[in-house]
Amino acid sequence: MSDISNSHFGIHAKWIYTANSKQELLEDHIILIKNDLIEEIVPFSDFSNNEDLNILNLGESLITPGLINAHTHSAMTFLKGISDDQRLNDWLEKSIWPNEEKLLSNDLVYDASQLACLEMLSSGITTFNDMYFFPDATAKAATVVGIRANIGLVFIEFKSSYANDFTDYLDKGLKFRDDFRGEENVTTTLAPHAPYTVSDDSFLKIRTYADQLGMNIHCHMHETEWEIINSIEQHNVRPLARLDSLGLLGPDFIAVHCVHLSSSDIEIIKKNQINIVTCPVSNLKLASGMPKINTMLNAAQNVSIGSDGSASNNKLGLFDDLKLFALLQRNEAGVTEFTNSKNLFDMVTINAAKTLNMQDQIGSIEKNKKADLVAFNLSDIHLQPIYDPLSTIIYSGGRDNVEHVWVNGDLKFSETEFINDIDVETSINKIKLWKNKIST
Amino acid sequence: MSDISNSHFGIHAKWIYTANSKQELLEDHIILIKNDLIEEIVPFSDFSNNEDLNILNLGESLITPGLINAHTHSAMTFLKGISDDQRLNDWLEKSIWPNEEKLLSNDLVYDASQLACLEMLSSGITTFNDMYFFPDATAKAATVVGIRANIGLVFIEFKSSYANDFTDYLDKGLKFRDDFRGEENVTTTLAPHAPYTVSDDSFLKIRTYADQLGMNIHCHMHETEWEIINSIEQHNVRPLARLDSLGLLGPDFIAVHCVHLSSSDIEIIKKNQINIVTCPVSNLKLASGMPKINTMLNAAQNVSIGSDGSASNNKLGLFDDLKLFALLQRNEAGVTEFTNSKNLFDMVTINAAKTLNMQDQIGSIEKNKKADLVAFNLSDIHLQPIYDPLSTIIYSGGRDNVEHVWVNGDLKFSETEFINDIDVETSINKIKLWKNKIST
Repeated sequence: MSDISNSHFGIHAKWIYTANSKQELLEDHIILIKNDLIEEIVPFSDFSNNEDLNILNLGESLITPGLINAHTHSAMTFLKGISDDQRLNDWLEKSIWPNEEKLLSNDLVYDASQLACLEMLSSGITTFNDMYFFPDATAKAATVVGIRANIGLVFIEFKSSYANDFTDYLDKGLKFRDDFRGEENVTTTLAPHAPYTVSDDSFLKIRTYADQLGMNIHCHMHETEWEIINSIEQHNVRPLARLDSLGLLGPDFIAVHCVHLSSSDIEIIKKNQINIVTCPVSNLKLASGMPKINTMLNAAQNVSIGSDGSASNNKLGLFDDLKLFALLQRNEAGVTEFTNSKNLFDMVTINAAKTLNMQDQIGSIEKNKKADLVAFNLSDIHLQPIYDPLSTIIYSGGRDNVEHVWVNGDLKFSETEFINDIDVETSINKIKLWKNKIST
Repeated sequence: MSDISNSHFGIHAKWIYTANSKQELLEDHIILIKNDLIEEIVPFSDFSNNEDLNILNLGESLITPGLINAHTHSAMTFLKGISDDQRLNDWLEKSIWPNEEKLLSNDLVYDASQLACLEMLSSGITTFNDMYFFPDATAKAATVVGIRANIGLVFIEFKSSYANDFTDYLDKGLKFRDDFRGEENVTTTLAPHAPYTVSDDSFLKIRTYADQLGMNIHCHMHETEWEIINSIEQHNVRPLARLDSLGLLGPDFIAVHCVHLSSSDIEIIKKNQINIVTCPVSNLKLASGMPKINTMLNAAQNVSIGSDGSASNNKLGLFDDLKLFALLQRNEAGVTEFTNSKNLFDMVTINAAKTLNMQDQIGSIEKNKKADLVAFNLSDIHLQPIYDPLSTIIYSGGRDNVEHVWVNGDLKFSETEFINDIDVETSINKIKLWKNKIST
């Protein structure tokens, strides 16, 4: 299919969901792509192919902006499915932490992140927002796979095989940021792990760097009840209140989880125009609690959806997350309206782009935005009949309906194949070798 | 692949989950199949192929009993995805009921059931438990597709294009039962729709027929709060108490949904050894309420899982249902243990077989049971690495991992193809024609 990987071409589909501010669902249109950008979106009936461009006709397909996974730990793919039946404490203490301590290395993070990137790309994800040790290894894996990555400079107040202390995490993080400055597909955030693992002092330094470098802050917040109880014991306040008083919160703050929110927390979120990323599958799998979707939608500047890491989900593809988000939203007390399918798709496209402050580049199908696109084949027997192509994907569809994925106008995945020169077998075999070193 | 469709052959796989009473997960075994039955399960290391049988080596695959969808309305596939964003009342009153009234016919039920059977079969389902109008058309579609069907003789106290009154529903139901008596893959139940649509008199007659003919009773119960309030208004008791006092309940009673259960309901369920089928995706999609999984597990004789009809799910393949069942189970108050992956798989295999009183024939991989099997290919990149093949399918897998499906020892689905002489395109086109007649 090299004929559609050239620098100026068109894609013709039955449906295009733009995720633009009018939430336009276009029928029978062509997206024209020039180099890495969307040149124009035109009705098929108005299109005359004067320049004799290659036009890929996808027939009964839906094209949407490439999906954005707003929170993950790609490299945790090496722990996918470990001790699935264990409760949180045993799972963390017997399976996750000992193996991280034993095995974490640049090589492991690279190999596991590469597998995660392949999983995400083939699930229609073109951008992911990551937080983990050895961020440079994840960034490198993303670059090789050809997916867009927003990578956190991680901070945590304990020694790891990656770094020794706050200064070391900071130095390594900033060096990573400098090293990847020329890499168009890699952007960075500051990623303090969580209120219970980062000190006031460190948070204050992170705020300073965020202001000076214009970087977002990406942090787990209010994931479990334990975290809140612990904060009250240690600091006499709930975590959000603590960070508010430190001056850490603002429209550049990305709060992940927010499962447990009091009315005072909600006020803090509103006042500071915080972004929330919810990870409903992970929250339920770890029995952290049921996220209150409507509360988030009412409080946050933007709500978007993340898979969380593979160890607690165990899919990075967002389809299960989006469906569960929709199902939970409908079942909260006092709900009178169901979040419609356009708003749901916005959670994994434009809202996530806004959350990452990348809305000028990605998240919608609009002129001059990056040509990050996913085409869903809707001719599959499992999807028939089709009344609404968006709700069809949300409620009947899945990763097996992802047919083509473009990043920067380059075709990266088509039918069941990766286009780049990626040896999938080797990638799988590497993860099997790592698995053999795991203790369970 | 006709060489593996002969009457005596073997299947060799890395993992076999038997769902037998010991819940054995076998590694590196061969299932020998003779005609329609499982002849033997032997360790590969002990097997000498004296009879020169064809042995299909599936490598890194998991074989489980064919999945059983314990509650559906196959024919409602023609309404799949209609008005997904609407609340229950509007959805029923504006989309579902008017279209059923306008279009229901033997032809529609046949065409839509056939598509549903194809969807189910390609999702690893080898038996489904159905309730709808024109049951003979659904049974015929199942027979053509080659899937095992347990079809309800439906009763409802209103006139439809299928039947006029109770006597008419009964006559037509019994005639259907007689007509399909020679059809090995078709069994039947009595299927009164729900307490709010069936009178005391009719229920009593159904109890008599159940006793005389040895048939199960398949009925919606306590799906919504409205249903319970309505029963108290009309009958001064909750629906389960009403049916208990009518003598309708017993180990042959299949109560579908049971979302809303009081402590007295639980006592009635225990006392009568009722079977519960839960449909968690449907309950959440229609905002009927969150099913209390642990309550069901403690109260019911058997708990199994159904998709419900496509209009309220919108997948018949059980993967989303099973995962949601697991996630909800973990998040109920007071839960100390997570339902493990073997118990979860039992919900969609042996427990469902017991619910349908078919456990002597299907539901587990054991000598002399029907060779109804599904093989999952676990080499997929999305599933790596694999710590537990069962939890891998539950949390990371899906219908796209279903590689082969056998019913009665006959290969019915392989890779992406149906083996029978089924024209999938025609089936899809027929449903598109029906969709064009739908009013939205």
